[in-house]
Amino acid sequence: MSAPLLTPLRRIHTPNGDVLHGMKASDAGYAGFGEAYFSMVAGGATKGWKRHFRMTLNLVCIAGAVRFVVYGEAEQLLDVTLSPSSPERYRRLTVPPMLWVGFRGETAGDNVILNVASIPHDPAEAETIDLSRFPWPDGEGG
Amino acid sequence: MSAPLLTPLRRIHTPNGDVLHGMKASDAGYAGFGEAYFSMVAGGATKGWKRHFRMTLNLVCIAGAVRFVVYGEAEQLLDVTLSPSSPERYRRLTVPPMLWVGFRGETAGDNVILNVASIPHDPAEAETIDLSRFPWPDGEGG
Repeated sequence: MSAPLLTPLRRIHTPNGDVLHGMKASDAGYAGFGEAYFSMVAGGATKGWKRHFRMTLNLVCIAGAVRFVVYGEAEQLLDVTLSPSSPERYRRLTVPPMLWVGFRGETAGDNVILNVASIPHDPAEAETIDLSRFPWPDGEGG
Repeated sequence: MSAPLLTPLRRIHTPNGDVLHGMKASDAGYAGFGEAYFSMVAGGATKGWKRHFRMTLNLVCIAGAVRFVVYGEAEQLLDVTLSPSSPERYRRLTVPPMLWVGFRGETAGDNVILNVASIPHDPAEAETIDLSRFPWPDGEGG
């Protein structure tokens, strides 16, 4: 089982509106292109825990802020907040297969994630367990 | 020179936040994966005219609303508004190489476009001309 990966992303200022990097085929963490889709999560709401058997996730937050927590079999591997609103938090989270992922909306407005997924959506290659199965960490995410 | 293509996209309601389709590798208009990046455009601001020599653009609006106008050598080919806020306007615009593209932010909030580009960014394969070179259409976009 490989480890999750965080990669800083550039946000390039231009006068009429910024350009924000997401994922290049040559980037670390790229594992093929199956599908790009968006997930929204309401402020204070938590989605999870879900793991994929074959899909590698490449996650970029393009609106609001979203806190991600990643577990292995039982151990917490990562607790990180993604957001386009600050340079430190504008970064991509790569999640290889077989890790449990939960995420929470951190703003009252829209919280939007892009997933550049290595394979197309297939419900047979993922499983979801109840949120109570792993603790949601206290305090603020990294 | 091939024509621009509009493809309806699904927005799937879920209790804690929707899932919105973007692009699958098996979709009409997919021409390979080079890079996924975001462009923002301020309300009332217009970016253009730009054409790519080799890149196919696959454009999805994930926040606000963005009006796209596409020209061939001289003739207007398309005038369309993309937005996740209405089912009719949540659709993907595919732009093959060699067409001129301009776009304008249509809301006072964030107007955000995802481009699933067929090749990575390369300034040598695109050119930009002044906005005055083609008329911006009157009225509202389609």
